[in-house]
Amino acid sequence: MTGPDPDATALDLPPLDPLPDATQKYFDVCTEKLGLIPNVLAAYAFDTGKLDAFSGLYNNLMLAESGLSKLEREMIAVAVSSINRCFYCLVAHGAAVRHLSGDPMLGEALVMNYRYAEITDKQRAMLDFAVKMTEESYRIEETDRQALRDAGFSDRDIWDIAAVASFYNMSNRMASAVGMQPNTDYHGQAR
Amino acid sequence: MTGPDPDATALDLPPLDPLPDATQKYFDVCTEKLGLIPNVLAAYAFDTGKLDAFSGLYNNLMLAESGLSKLEREMIAVAVSSINRCFYCLVAHGAAVRHLSGDPMLGEALVMNYRYAEITDKQRAMLDFAVKMTEESYRIEETDRQALRDAGFSDRDIWDIAAVASFYNMSNRMASAVGMQPNTDYHGQAR
Amino acid sequence: MTGPDPDATALDLPPLDPLPDATQKYFDVCTEKLGLIPNVLAAYAFDTGKLDAFSGLYNNLMLAESGLSKLEREMIAVAVSSINRCFYCLVAHGAAVRHLSGDPMLGEALVMNYRYAEITDKQRAMLDFAVKMTEESYRIEETDRQALRDAGFSDRDIWDIAAVASFYNMSNRMASAVGMQPNTDYHGQAR
Amino acid sequence: MTGPDPDATALDLPPLDPLPDATQKYFDVCTEKLGLIPNVLAAYAFDTGKLDAFSGLYNNLMLAESGLSKLEREMIAVAVSSINRCFYCLVAHGAAVRHLSGDPMLGEALVMNYRYAEITDKQRAMLDFAVKMTEESYRIEETDRQALRDAGFSDRDIWDIAAVASFYNMSNRMASAVGMQPNTDYHGQAR
Amino acid sequence: MTGPDPDATALDLPPLDPLPDATQKYFDVCTEKLGLIPNVLAAYAFDTGKLDAFSGLYNNLMLAESGLSKLEREMIAVAVSSINRCFYCLVAHGAAVRHLSGDPMLGEALVMNYRYAEITDKQRAMLDFAVKMTEESYRIEETDRQALRDAGFSDRDIWDIAAVASFYNMSNRMASAVGMQPNTDYHGQAR
Amino acid sequence: MTGPDPDATALDLPPLDPLPDATQKYFDVCTEKLGLIPNVLAAYAFDTGKLDAFSGLYNNLMLAESGLSKLEREMIAVAVSSINRCFYCLVAHGAAVRHLSGDPMLGEALVMNYRYAEITDKQRAMLDFAVKMTEESYRIEETDRQALRDAGFSDRDIWDIAAVASFYNMSNRMASAVGMQPNTDYHGQAR
Repeated sequence: MTGPDPDATALDLPPLDPLPDATQKYFDVCTEKLGLIPNVLAAYAFDTGKLDAFSGLYNNLMLAESGLSKLEREMIAVAVSSINRCFYCLVAHGAAVRHLSGDPMLGEALVMNYRYAEITDKQRAMLDFAVKMTEESYRIEETDRQALRDAGFSDRDIWDIAAVASFYNMSNRMASAVGMQPNTDYHGQAR
Repeated sequence: MTGPDPDATALDLPPLDPLPDATQKYFDVCTEKLGLIPNVLAAYAFDTGKLDAFSGLYNNLMLAESGLSKLEREMIAVAVSSINRCFYCLVAHGAAVRHLSGDPMLGEALVMNYRYAEITDKQRAMLDFAVKMTEESYRIEETDRQALRDAGFSDRDIWDIAAVASFYNMSNRMASAVGMQPNTDYHGQAR
Repeated sequence: MTGPDPDATALDLPPLDPLPDATQKYFDVCTEKLGLIPNVLAAYAFDTGKLDAFSGLYNNLMLAESGLSKLEREMIAVAVSSINRCFYCLVAHGAAVRHLSGDPMLGEALVMNYRYAEITDKQRAMLDFAVKMTEESYRIEETDRQALRDAGFSDRDIWDIAAVASFYNMSNRMASAVGMQPNTDYHGQAR
Repeated sequence: MTGPDPDATALDLPPLDPLPDATQKYFDVCTEKLGLIPNVLAAYAFDTGKLDAFSGLYNNLMLAESGLSKLEREMIAVAVSSINRCFYCLVAHGAAVRHLSGDPMLGEALVMNYRYAEITDKQRAMLDFAVKMTEESYRIEETDRQALRDAGFSDRDIWDIAAVASFYNMSNRMASAVGMQPNTDYHGQAR
Repeated sequence: MTGPDPDATALDLPPLDPLPDATQKYFDVCTEKLGLIPNVLAAYAFDTGKLDAFSGLYNNLMLAESGLSKLEREMIAVAVSSINRCFYCLVAHGAAVRHLSGDPMLGEALVMNYRYAEITDKQRAMLDFAVKMTEESYRIEETDRQALRDAGFSDRDIWDIAAVASFYNMSNRMASAVGMQPNTDYHGQAR
Repeated sequence: MTGPDPDATALDLPPLDPLPDATQKYFDVCTEKLGLIPNVLAAYAFDTGKLDAFSGLYNNLMLAESGLSKLEREMIAVAVSSINRCFYCLVAHGAAVRHLSGDPMLGEALVMNYRYAEITDKQRAMLDFAVKMTEESYRIEETDRQALRDAGFSDRDIWDIAAVASFYNMSNRMASAVGMQPNTDYHGQAR
């Protein structure tokens, strides 16, 4: 496939055709680097304003400088998506964890039950916070933030943990609400 | 107060000082139009890349053209925030519903239990979907989307309902995770 | 309106007409002191035996001498009603908290998420107990009662906390079950 | 034992000693009719104002004229107490169901899982409503009330179902909150 | 009744007729020792391979040598069945607890809310673990196992606690799924 | 590794050494056919009575003649294990689904959210029943069984669906309670 999948979701919202140049270029970069255009981007391609706003936030959270490594951010993505049972995000970000870590079992454990992942105590504290935010954010209090500080995170790190966990609570629900289908190529990657 | 509140959250992440010109201008517009700089923006003011990415998505969702009125988008914001018991968002967007509707009781009902709000059947279907997405997004299936179509929504409208409901599931969790405090002025507005 | 609202609930159970003298006098006192006849009383006015039994318990719990102030009893009412998402009780007792405290933000916080209320540690312990009783009373054990003693409450105070929290678990369910509507005047009071 | 059990709860709130005449007479009637002073009454005997208010409401709900039989009101009591896992109420009202029905298996089924009770369809509708009120009262809407009407209940009956179910949601929580112990005689009654 | 009840479940799967000799002998032993053929065995009697596999596991868990007494294993059975609200198992194993302990109140407490059972601290730790396994097994971690060791259990005991609690999570669901009815004789036993 | 893994669980219960001949033979068959000795069997190898009872039931359920194919039984195993978030069973039976179906995506979907699996309507009804049994078995009633009959299942099939779903509710809890680790070879199988 050389263009965005028109059946990326259950909604009848086909990509703009032709795509604006900038979008086409962005998708070409995806195809070159990832071997595919992620369906989440294909889904947004009916409206470039929405696509740009979404990918702008995504890129800032997942790629900008942070005290959290890119792998750690993907770990949060998968742990959160597991609680929300989001098929799209578990497939796509499970693949990312396997790829970035070179450890397929880590990806599996985060998809299934993050308590079984072989990670550091600091990373466990990070995921405990992200999961509590996902399950019952209204119970988060200062003691929860302090637990992250005690585990070695700075306030800036806490912001980033919170922001990434929050983002996937958005993204999981969007994917589930519109019936988003993951690109089939993800399943076999980095096994 | 003429600048962003440095205590907008429980994290020690003060706004840039001085603010970049563009940000200062954005905040000046807020002060002029709203009479305040919303603390959610103050909270992001430690990093303009993050502020711009967040407000870019926010502005697209809440202000861009849509089959949903601005009031309806705020109604979704409050119904979702009620499920997540997000103090910040209930205060800020509860005020927005009161302001846009001129109906303080509508704002109250959405904060407390949206089933008591006096709204159209179509709006009720919209909020039922938004609340199901919030409580158990993994159970959303084609029948749920079809119920929205049957209520008179287009696929494009469904996208917007899903996107706004998803956004507040992010925003609620971010506010709760960092202990965001709403501007005190909201409480008395449009009563 | 000079008589009890005949549409206080979704049930077809109109007030006695004429009301017995004692009931009329009671309602006149309400009108004089509160400016309205609370719809919860109007709802019971189809049967004075039921009205008297209900208001007898209510008056004892909320007005009789206690180690808890009247405001604290109303705080429990609102925190419990928030968990049960009871529209009637949140509107009526939210107004009472605003009125007794002179602090609209306190009322809002208790309606939305009591963890954000600016209250003493002792009051927080009181609300934690009331909320646990509401959410999972079967898990209450001696350690929970001891936590109240450690916070400075006597056994008699614990009885009163338990009794008030229990009462609103009754009252919330009654209001929701019969579709009780709050008097519209409450919304704007003490803002 | 000829007086109220001073250890009816985990709180140090002994009965008045001596009891006022009216209370002593009430307890004497209990002993004569039931063979015991129910510990719920013993628990309240530290304050006759509270005892009278509680028993006033109890008597109105459980004994006054109603479209529901006394057995049906006890069935609601047990079904609600089962959801709330209230030891005191299950023991005391389980015995009442066995006694009034002459059917020990009915009492057992209501304690364990009311779906297994051999009751009429109309009674099943009554218990479904009472249980929904207990588990998630905020979701009760007109369709739930209409289901009761369709099953043959009048609006006055619906009030009584709601009132009894609400009362045990209070009573269950009170018993659990103060650690109330049932009289041991109940266990063997009407087996 | 001298043979297995053909209506032990809601499924149309009558016992083999005639029963194979070994099965008939097994059922004769039941009748002799228990005064009845437990309906759970009657339910499996349509297929002796399934009956033997089920009863093989049951007998090993409940009757083989263990650091847990037979009563303690029945206590786990009832506490787990209470969480799962399994009518069949609560009736049958509630009777077993009453019989083995000679304490009807212990059986009642375990059926209703195990937190009210008068048991040793060690037994309470055992039931807390069994109940946590039942409610949210995915949250069990090393600290939970260590709590059992701290209470005095060996690793072999922990295996047995886990195995018995797991078995009733199977058995409860099987009984509920096929609509299994307990033998009526259980209700009155050992009261 | 040629023997059972002594670290299959978090408990200190090493396999018998030497293993009895029959057990050694059984494990040799596993190694030959599967390329490994499943850790669930290694975990039980400290007591051959327990191993035989467990594997007896397992073999009857998963391998004996049934109206359900072996793949369908594995599908139930994975869907149930997903609800219970059992790491061991998801890894081991996820591999089995991939192997038996030749469809890695089917295995993934069942691990993540069975509603996204591409299966027949009849299989969907089967999994809906298995998942309801897992989440809230006490709500199963005749209408649930009838839904399976309407989907084309016989009463004997319903028994098998119920029995397999029940078994994994046992097995999931056992694995989680003892901290069972899956053989690492499963992760890469049949991708």
